[in-house]
Amino acid sequence: MAKELNKEFFENLRLCIDENNKDVASDLLKEMHPADIAEFFEEIDIEDAKFLFLLLDHETAADVLVEIQEEERQNLLAIIPTEILAEKLIGQMDSDDAADILGDLDEQRTDEIISHIKDLEQAGDIVDLLNYDEDTAGGLMAKELVSINENLTVKQALGEMRDQAEDIDEIYYLYVVDDNNILKGTVALKDLLFSSTNKKISSIVDPDVISVKTETDGEEVAKIMEKYDLVAVPVVDGIGRLMGRITIDDVVDVIREEAEEDYQLMSGITQDVDFSDNVIRQSRSRIPWLLIGMLGGIAGSLILGIYEEDIEKYAVLALFLPLIVATGGNAGVQSSAIVVQGLASGDIDLHSMSRKLFKEFKVGLVNGLVCASLIFLYNLIFSDNFALTLTVSISLFSVVVFATVFGTFIPLFLNKIKIDPAIATGPFITTSNDIIGIFIYLMIARGIFAYFV
Amino acid sequence: MAKELNKEFFENLRLCIDENNKDVASDLLKEMHPADIAEFFEEIDIEDAKFLFLLLDHETAADVLVEIQEEERQNLLAIIPTEILAEKLIGQMDSDDAADILGDLDEQRTDEIISHIKDLEQAGDIVDLLNYDEDTAGGLMAKELVSINENLTVKQALGEMRDQAEDIDEIYYLYVVDDNNILKGTVALKDLLFSSTNKKISSIVDPDVISVKTETDGEEVAKIMEKYDLVAVPVVDGIGRLMGRITIDDVVDVIREEAEEDYQLMSGITQDVDFSDNVIRQSRSRIPWLLIGMLGGIAGSLILGIYEEDIEKYAVLALFLPLIVATGGNAGVQSSAIVVQGLASGDIDLHSMSRKLFKEFKVGLVNGLVCASLIFLYNLIFSDNFALTLTVSISLFSVVVFATVFGTFIPLFLNKIKIDPAIATGPFITTSNDIIGIFIYLMIARGIFAYFV
Repeated sequence: MAKELNKEFFENLRLCIDENNKDVASDLLKEMHPADIAEFFEEIDIEDAKFLFLLLDHETAADVLVEIQEEERQNLLAIIPTEILAEKLIGQMDSDDAADILGDLDEQRTDEIISHIKDLEQAGDIVDLLNYDEDTAGGLMAKELVSINENLTVKQALGEMRDQAEDIDEIYYLYVVDDNNILKGTVALKDLLFSSTNKKISSIVDPDVISVKTETDGEEVAKIMEKYDLVAVPVVDGIGRLMGRITIDDVVDVIREEAEEDYQLMSGITQDVDFSDNVIRQSRSRIPWLLIGMLGGIAGSLILGIYEEDIEKYAVLALFLPLIVATGGNAGVQSSAIVVQGLASGDIDLHSMSRKLFKEFKVGLVNGLVCASLIFLYNLIFSDNFALTLTVSISLFSVVVFATVFGTFIPLFLNKIKIDPAIATGPFITTSNDIIGIFIYLMIARGIFAYFV
Repeated sequence: MAKELNKEFFENLRLCIDENNKDVASDLLKEMHPADIAEFFEEIDIEDAKFLFLLLDHETAADVLVEIQEEERQNLLAIIPTEILAEKLIGQMDSDDAADILGDLDEQRTDEIISHIKDLEQAGDIVDLLNYDEDTAGGLMAKELVSINENLTVKQALGEMRDQAEDIDEIYYLYVVDDNNILKGTVALKDLLFSSTNKKISSIVDPDVISVKTETDGEEVAKIMEKYDLVAVPVVDGIGRLMGRITIDDVVDVIREEAEEDYQLMSGITQDVDFSDNVIRQSRSRIPWLLIGMLGGIAGSLILGIYEEDIEKYAVLALFLPLIVATGGNAGVQSSAIVVQGLASGDIDLHSMSRKLFKEFKVGLVNGLVCASLIFLYNLIFSDNFALTLTVSISLFSVVVFATVFGTFIPLFLNKIKIDPAIATGPFITTSNDIIGIFIYLMIARGIFAYFV
């Protein structure tokens, strides 16, 4: 069993740091999983993390570098001599992890480290991977995989695998290729194990393999792996040559990040920010949306200014302003969010936009009618101003219908012109919804009050 | 390569349905992956889906049932005789998939199907799994795994594995247990393959295995598998006996659902709803939040009613009402969203709530100051009403600070009393934020206008 690390354990570790007790600290670190060490390093002072980092054996140190967040990683990388970093840490990692770490460094340091990696094949793999955009399948894949020629026998394949598999932690499938390295299919390890040893690989290969291209978008890779329940997917180039493989653990990160991105867009946060970030970073990530919202508020105040006389005459109009604006905003966000989610999960196809809008129009009609009827009843009972009652109901109905359709249209439209539709749930749309809501309300009010009063 | 299915392919398939051409339809279906068939069935009329479903071989039909959404699945299940369903479809699935499908049926039908499964071990596994809450590790796990006794030799283990592995599609690790079925560790298939055949399993076992308990929450399982990059995790009972294993593909669904849930809560949708759902379902899922928002609007109108005289006298006050309310709402949602995300990803520990609130107070001070200064400048330039200028700035500052702290406090508090903190980003908090914002604004206005005018 993996050791459960309790409070006492961490207190002991902190004590070792304070007392500079390297021996005991070393022993304690040996009981920790690299992922736990990385998490601990993110919590403590960077000087203390450096002290502990130097006590780790190379394998663990490499794993910690892979797991830890970028900021802390830069600090740790800085204290390791380039030779050791290249030879013992980066050079021993899976090629995708090595490329991810080097991709965050400046070019000069990257070149320096790569030039110190003695295993030229490994160095070449890393250089290859650094050429791909990190958001594509090429940027996600690792070069480590077991590929066998279709002309080998099962026995030869087992031997071949033994040679190749040494550096690979986990094998899910063997990839079968022809003489030109074109991917022909897969063989499950289990099937290899239980086939007679002189059979040809080509006779046991499963040719129905799902693969992705190096330029396939990372989110698309995630959708494919999710849909077909894959734990690993081979990556091929334009002519079908096997270039690498992507494992599901890397894709889980993509899924998590994608969801976080959409969530942050909706909540109006402009950059990736953690609760643990400092006050300045927190403020910087939030102020842009607050300011865009304020611009909307100012636009709203200008529109209201046009109608200031009406408000002076019928101050009661101001009472329902927040209700109209908020309900319109809510209806719009709901529509946008459903579209954004449908696009993210691939549930929405891109044909017949007008049919989709017409359906949302019907949803808006139903919701608008329900909301308007209820507020009509409320005002009928509690207000003696029938002009107000009529104005609020009709406005609310119009605003809900408009916002529902508008909220559907915008993300579909953004998606069509290749802009991230999740932006629709963010500040621009809600703000324009607010402004249009105010405008509709006051226009309808002027008409009705002119007639009734 | 998996066949790329183009538009023409689907047109042909639809043509077969129209012409009742079973032979060609059968051939076309054979070229499709079960996940693609399930997706297609979700798009077409249920009668057409039934027609095609009956053409599938049993293995594919079972896979389609696993992949397809619940509504369509119920319809397909209804047309299959119980014996065939039990013997050829459910009985051939992995136990976790079988239990998931049966868990959605009513008890009588479930019992009927289970009683028709001839493989008693399989039936027993399914009954066991049905007892677990579907949101726990027990509800996620499958019974299919390869477990070997630590006292076997490598050769014996290979034989044992051959027997057990027949029903298991993918093997990631072999689980090593003692005579009491207590989990002792894992052996990678690769290591088994490359060890000399007369070695004892206990000498090559890796004892550092991370496991979860049957009652562990599904989201917790997801966090553990993400953190330690696991593709499969063994599940043990209270005394450490091996009960099953969870594979990452099931956990990917948990992660996706969790993210969607939080997203829907923030966008104010009260039940799981897809873009493809009909108008009534769409309306039903959205109206509750619209109504709660309206209640907030009505509360706002009551507060504004108290100050109606002030508004009549100083109609200009109404102009900045939307700005104050919207900015406060935005600031609150930002804070809540960051906390909700931090709690979901496990970044936020639960100690020292007061320190966290104090930090957010500082963020609120910075953001409030920036926003208030800008609106102060704006009004100084464009308005000749200094009382208004002062009122708007001071109110905006107070509202932003309040909303920032309030937006942090509520999700932390909800989490403490074991309520899903994501609710904080939904209607209740934004609505109360709106009301409090209106109140702060008008209180400050009354004070300042009384002094200046």
